[in-house]
Amino acid sequence: MSPNLNPGATYLGNGCCRFCVWAPRAESVAVRILTPERQEVPLIQGERGYFYGDIKGVQPGSLYYYLLDGEKERPDPASRYQPQGVHGPSQVVDTAAFKWSDQCWHGPAQQELVFYELHVGTFTAEGTLAAIIPHLESLRQLGITALELMPLAQFPGQRNWGYDGVYPYAVQNSYGGPKELQQLVDSCHRLGLAVFLDVVYNHLGPEGNYFGDFGFYFSDRYHTPWGMALNFDGPGSDEVRRFFINNALYWLREFHIDGLRLDAVHAIIDNSAIPFLEELSQAVHREGEKLKRRVYIFAESDLNNPRLIQPQAVGGYGIDGQWSDDFHHALHALLTGEQDGYYQDFGCLEHLARVFREGYVYSGQYSPYRQRRHGRRPQLTKACQFVVYAQNHDQVGNRVRGQRLSNLVGFSELKLAAAIVLLSPFIPLLFMGEEYGETAPFQYFTSHTDPELAEAVQEGRKEEFAAFDWDVKVPNPQAKNTFLRSRLQHQLLQQEKHRRLRRYYQQLLRLRRELPALANLSLDNLEVIPYQQEQVLLVHRWSNGNEVCLLFSFNSENVTLTLPLKAGSWCKHLDSAEEKWLGKGTAVPALLTATGKVQLTIAARTCLLFERIKEA
Amino acid sequence: MSPNLNPGATYLGNGCCRFCVWAPRAESVAVRILTPERQEVPLIQGERGYFYGDIKGVQPGSLYYYLLDGEKERPDPASRYQPQGVHGPSQVVDTAAFKWSDQCWHGPAQQELVFYELHVGTFTAEGTLAAIIPHLESLRQLGITALELMPLAQFPGQRNWGYDGVYPYAVQNSYGGPKELQQLVDSCHRLGLAVFLDVVYNHLGPEGNYFGDFGFYFSDRYHTPWGMALNFDGPGSDEVRRFFINNALYWLREFHIDGLRLDAVHAIIDNSAIPFLEELSQAVHREGEKLKRRVYIFAESDLNNPRLIQPQAVGGYGIDGQWSDDFHHALHALLTGEQDGYYQDFGCLEHLARVFREGYVYSGQYSPYRQRRHGRRPQLTKACQFVVYAQNHDQVGNRVRGQRLSNLVGFSELKLAAAIVLLSPFIPLLFMGEEYGETAPFQYFTSHTDPELAEAVQEGRKEEFAAFDWDVKVPNPQAKNTFLRSRLQHQLLQQEKHRRLRRYYQQLLRLRRELPALANLSLDNLEVIPYQQEQVLLVHRWSNGNEVCLLFSFNSENVTLTLPLKAGSWCKHLDSAEEKWLGKGTAVPALLTATGKVQLTIAARTCLLFERIKEA
Repeated sequence: MSPNLNPGATYLGNGCCRFCVWAPRAESVAVRILTPERQEVPLIQGERGYFYGDIKGVQPGSLYYYLLDGEKERPDPASRYQPQGVHGPSQVVDTAAFKWSDQCWHGPAQQELVFYELHVGTFTAEGTLAAIIPHLESLRQLGITALELMPLAQFPGQRNWGYDGVYPYAVQNSYGGPKELQQLVDSCHRLGLAVFLDVVYNHLGPEGNYFGDFGFYFSDRYHTPWGMALNFDGPGSDEVRRFFINNALYWLREFHIDGLRLDAVHAIIDNSAIPFLEELSQAVHREGEKLKRRVYIFAESDLNNPRLIQPQAVGGYGIDGQWSDDFHHALHALLTGEQDGYYQDFGCLEHLARVFREGYVYSGQYSPYRQRRHGRRPQLTKACQFVVYAQNHDQVGNRVRGQRLSNLVGFSELKLAAAIVLLSPFIPLLFMGEEYGETAPFQYFTSHTDPELAEAVQEGRKEEFAAFDWDVKVPNPQAKNTFLRSRLQHQLLQQEKHRRLRRYYQQLLRLRRELPALANLSLDNLEVIPYQQEQVLLVHRWSNGNEVCLLFSFNSENVTLTLPLKAGSWCKHLDSAEEKWLGKGTAVPALLTATGKVQLTIAARTCLLFERIKEA
Repeated sequence: MSPNLNPGATYLGNGCCRFCVWAPRAESVAVRILTPERQEVPLIQGERGYFYGDIKGVQPGSLYYYLLDGEKERPDPASRYQPQGVHGPSQVVDTAAFKWSDQCWHGPAQQELVFYELHVGTFTAEGTLAAIIPHLESLRQLGITALELMPLAQFPGQRNWGYDGVYPYAVQNSYGGPKELQQLVDSCHRLGLAVFLDVVYNHLGPEGNYFGDFGFYFSDRYHTPWGMALNFDGPGSDEVRRFFINNALYWLREFHIDGLRLDAVHAIIDNSAIPFLEELSQAVHREGEKLKRRVYIFAESDLNNPRLIQPQAVGGYGIDGQWSDDFHHALHALLTGEQDGYYQDFGCLEHLARVFREGYVYSGQYSPYRQRRHGRRPQLTKACQFVVYAQNHDQVGNRVRGQRLSNLVGFSELKLAAAIVLLSPFIPLLFMGEEYGETAPFQYFTSHTDPELAEAVQEGRKEEFAAFDWDVKVPNPQAKNTFLRSRLQHQLLQQEKHRRLRRYYQQLLRLRRELPALANLSLDNLEVIPYQQEQVLLVHRWSNGNEVCLLFSFNSENVTLTLPLKAGSWCKHLDSAEEKWLGKGTAVPALLTATGKVQLTIAARTCLLFERIKEA
């Protein structure tokens, strides 16, 4: 039956290729092969609007269009490659030809994940997938366990964050296409690094989007901030779901991707009895079992709705984890004092304490920014289900000038932020370059080729920031310089300060791995005490007889306070005030002897980590 | 704090009245009292857009408007009464003044519910709440245990189904207003009848709708088929929720209503972590505990989503039950052979068997009508959570000419339909008049006073049916005759045939109450066997040693078949082919002796009920 075929062109070998496309809007569909020789072959009409057929005289590398009703020439919605961009022909790709060397790879344990969010275009000067490979060993040494690649789906032009992608199955041509992705993943796996991919299942980019000519991909009953909502619950939605679920499995199967990061699931409106997200998460996990590898599905969610990450047995969707913007905002507001926009909901030490306790700040409380109660108490969720970060592409890039934290706060604060993220009981995520205090901004850039759209994007960007009181020129997203300005400057690592910060991150990650109390990601073995007056957060964590005490001071002055500390000796493993971390020096000794409490003078904006020494 | 006040005008006694209104769109709000003496009193501005104040010189019966920003004169969104209709002033009502006589009333058990859906305007010639009272004793004798009143909220004009209501707290003036509702409920309770109220929380009627001048009641992110979607998850949605939840509690507290029927919850789009429906259901049940009465919340839902009616512990919303349109459609398609519109998904005996087994026909299967898979397996749901019917206001009234089943099929089929509904393990609902085979149609009628709207409604109705191949003039909803034509003709009971049908319903309801196997609403003590070839459905039900065997023949001819039947003697309690039910006579004896099986000749379109006789 045709609905059982995978969408797109699947090369069968011997010059034969199977085509399958869902095109219920068309009366007839043919494949117009452009190379190696021009031919036009009508497809067979199957059930529910599918068209399919096996065609000979096709090779990997063959270019083709679909011809709808004998007149509309369109790229394949499930194109594996768009060598000439979003408007050009699709290319047949033999993904099965790649020789993998990762047979022993079984994927990372969830507790061990340490993400590195990476934008392919700006990570290196080349801006390709292959160009990342030489950097992998260094990331591994840093303590990263998983790359998280920003979306790779073909977008218009050469420059884009990836959220304007229109061909969910096609690896961006300017990034090097599908083969380079296979090479990158294989290289990662050989080094013990996992690879996560950011996928966008809430909308499709505006340019080169011919999906509407094929089928009922869109719904007019709901809206997203980025255009037409995808149809996950209306007529034809089974096939739309199938298209995206198959896409998820495609990355796992053909590219050995270890996990997906679902972009903005709050923009997926779906009123059906079996939500798309639940179906997707089930399919992904079922595939992992088949592949005998651990595979994950994480979600970016603005809903603070634990249902997403709860098990199906209690009515959840069974997604493995979610990003915690609350964690970011609580931390960012404390570090910067910013109170604009959504930061107005944050800024108290208690917010950070709350997010340490349960992964959200807002679990049902009134949010002044949202003008309504927000979120729900997360029950039956685990600490390793929350991904936390001091920066990410959105939090940096959605500022009008795209400033990183390194442009907003001092060196002490960078170290403090890193410690909070990396010593938290959650899964940490670093935004590429933050580990050495990259100073380049990460600005919003596009390269739409449709002039009207390009204009609209620029105007939209201006409007978006019109509400803010910033007297700043909004960078033009279409300008090539906006992109170039956002590239990493790896050469900064030639400077001592940047190198030292990187070593500090490395040290934090080592402690996180090696101290059992830190490695055990649990919300049960955790006590959080905010000292509001002193602006100090105390966190106790323990596991299997190992105990640590963490102190994070947001105070801009040195502060002396008496803390509860179990009687015994405590060894200091980290003190960000020390000169070795380019601090101003510390008054805290390397060994503490506590008698149930201890008095300490903590330097401004620093963090401390103690481990209890077991008695002989 | 003002947000803790109830919305609307609460009479405090001694000529003092408390006003509270949510009007975040206004800078200032005053109350313009029209009677007994004209006065204008500014309200105090509280938090989150509330305005409130206690005003003297007001009496029950006082008329008032709100004055927004000193210029817009508007009725109260939470008006308790609109004596002059949707555009007129609101009236202060002292609902606490009513002398109740139902102190001993504790509400019905869920298993005992037998609904009678009633449209106040057309149930009697008077069309008032008070005019229903003389009919109650007769309904009680029929076996009804709960009235279900179609919506009472003030709508434009005198004639409306109720779904164009705009003042959710105001009992329709032409129905007799709030006091008559209290009288009706009190009379019901004295007779042991419960009263359910149909409430519309998915949209507000188009005429007299000034809500947008007050606050953020509507969302532009979603659409409903009937206009603007209510805002249950955007900015200000806490207060919108509060308005409707308070409305639900208002009916329970001030009118002693026993339960609510939520209209079309599938049109409530709400992407929040704590859905409005869950919050509402919790609030209703909490109120029941306070009131020490059983109170219920049922939902009309087109979603086949068991989440609505599952307990909160497994991620459900905790709603007590839902209407099963699937049951209706499965039955209707079998009886009439209709295959238009949604009936195309039904028509096999197996559909009816499936709905008997689990409450839904579609629990994840592909629906040709919806062009997608529909529904979900109902787990942890109980039979008494499904409300079933052979007719209801929608299924009758949404036909172009509003024909009841009595206009579509013969007398045998009416009896067969009644037996299937009333002997099912679900909660039955009768649509007023069906118990005696009312022949008047129930057509769609309105009495909008806005001429443009009246025109639009009529055109809309024509368009809605344009797709159908029926060569029928669409009745004009605005014509008074359309309403008059839809009135019950109680005088039909003077005719033997109608009287006999009513007695037949009464007998079915008696059997349902008295036979333990029928009274126990359980899906576990049930076996359903469809004989596809013979078009006969066999249902075994048992409980506590009591066993019954039900046979429903949809065959248009007499049919002989051999059925499995436990060895022993079986006593026939019902045979719709008998002459006493105006049937053509039966070949089935009054006492059956089975030897593990039995051969029977079942008359066309009839039903049979046997009870196993316990051995001595």
